[in-house]
Amino acid sequence: MKGFTLWLTGLSGSGKSTLAREVEAALLERGCRVEVLDGDEVRQNLSAGLGFSRADRDTNIRRIGYVCRLLSRNGVVAIAAAISPYREARAANRAAIGRYVEVHCDCDLETLKARDPKGLYARAAQGEIANFTGISDPYEPPEHPEVVVHTGREDVETCVRRILRTLERLGLVPGVDAEGYRPEEEAEIARRLEDLGYL
Amino acid sequence: MKGFTLWLTGLSGSGKSTLAREVEAALLERGCRVEVLDGDEVRQNLSAGLGFSRADRDTNIRRIGYVCRLLSRNGVVAIAAAISPYREARAANRAAIGRYVEVHCDCDLETLKARDPKGLYARAAQGEIANFTGISDPYEPPEHPEVVVHTGREDVETCVRRILRTLERLGLVPGVDAEGYRPEEEAEIARRLEDLGYL
Repeated sequence: MKGFTLWLTGLSGSGKSTLAREVEAALLERGCRVEVLDGDEVRQNLSAGLGFSRADRDTNIRRIGYVCRLLSRNGVVAIAAAISPYREARAANRAAIGRYVEVHCDCDLETLKARDPKGLYARAAQGEIANFTGISDPYEPPEHPEVVVHTGREDVETCVRRILRTLERLGLVPGVDAEGYRPEEEAEIARRLEDLGYL
Repeated sequence: MKGFTLWLTGLSGSGKSTLAREVEAALLERGCRVEVLDGDEVRQNLSAGLGFSRADRDTNIRRIGYVCRLLSRNGVVAIAAAISPYREARAANRAAIGRYVEVHCDCDLETLKARDPKGLYARAAQGEIANFTGISDPYEPPEHPEVVVHTGREDVETCVRRILRTLERLGLVPGVDAEGYRPEEEAEIARRLEDLGYL
């Protein structure tokens, strides 16, 4: 099987890690080799010493992209879950990796602030955390992601289904449950991929 | 096929990159997935900004080890070619990676100085390059490498044969030309692996 990179971008708390793990489980079940590169964990392993300036964030994202590229070209599905706030850095990874599918984990800030399980948004609002994406640092949403999941109002299962179905439609993973898709889901995915020039 | 990491350590100019590429070609021919992580190239991608202090070298080696681990556990043969002068950092990678085979590219300093195709040893001797391994920075040779190749007096083919035969004996790659080994080569490899507790 050919590898590819599934890149989850979105604000802190928008569900990137959760979706990464769920998609990983689904793909392992389908016989794929999968590796999840989770932002925080990767930072420790590849980017200790880097901070949260734009330059440091971009370097971190480039390094994750480099590892995704090595894995993808060796038949592995690399799933990156990283805020990756800057469009340019994401575009550079897309260009370098080739088989690259972007998922925008879109969740409105009010919902994130209300959930805030780690209390990070509260601390950022009080100025205790500098350069906090969405509060005191920019987030540039993707303009043409292959998938948008609305993690503020859709449940995990719905988001995972849309991601998997998109991968199936792109011919990146074997389809197993196309029958189970509702016509409106199917139509939305087809419309997006058509807009992007895939279909 | 199970992945593993082949780690080539040795002084600058000792033939690590050459052997990495030769072994890569041989393993590709045998149907393996292979990725070469060459020290200089990886430094650009993973460790820009790091210098050549012990701490920075160790961080660089740990990062290469992390990538090798991800590749290896996904069925890829990761071949690292990096000076990796410190025993402790190499041992940490071995422990983290598991399926790890160390190759010591052993070449005496006089030969390296005489060859010196890039003029690095001459510049280091004149103090133009600080922290140059073997001249102004330590190199701790491996105590128990799976393979020792004497790149100062053995030709590339001999070195590659010994590496491949060791991988075959360890059951890491399919054997194709065991018949072609001379009894004394075979005996040397068997002796080393027995000393290490493999056989």
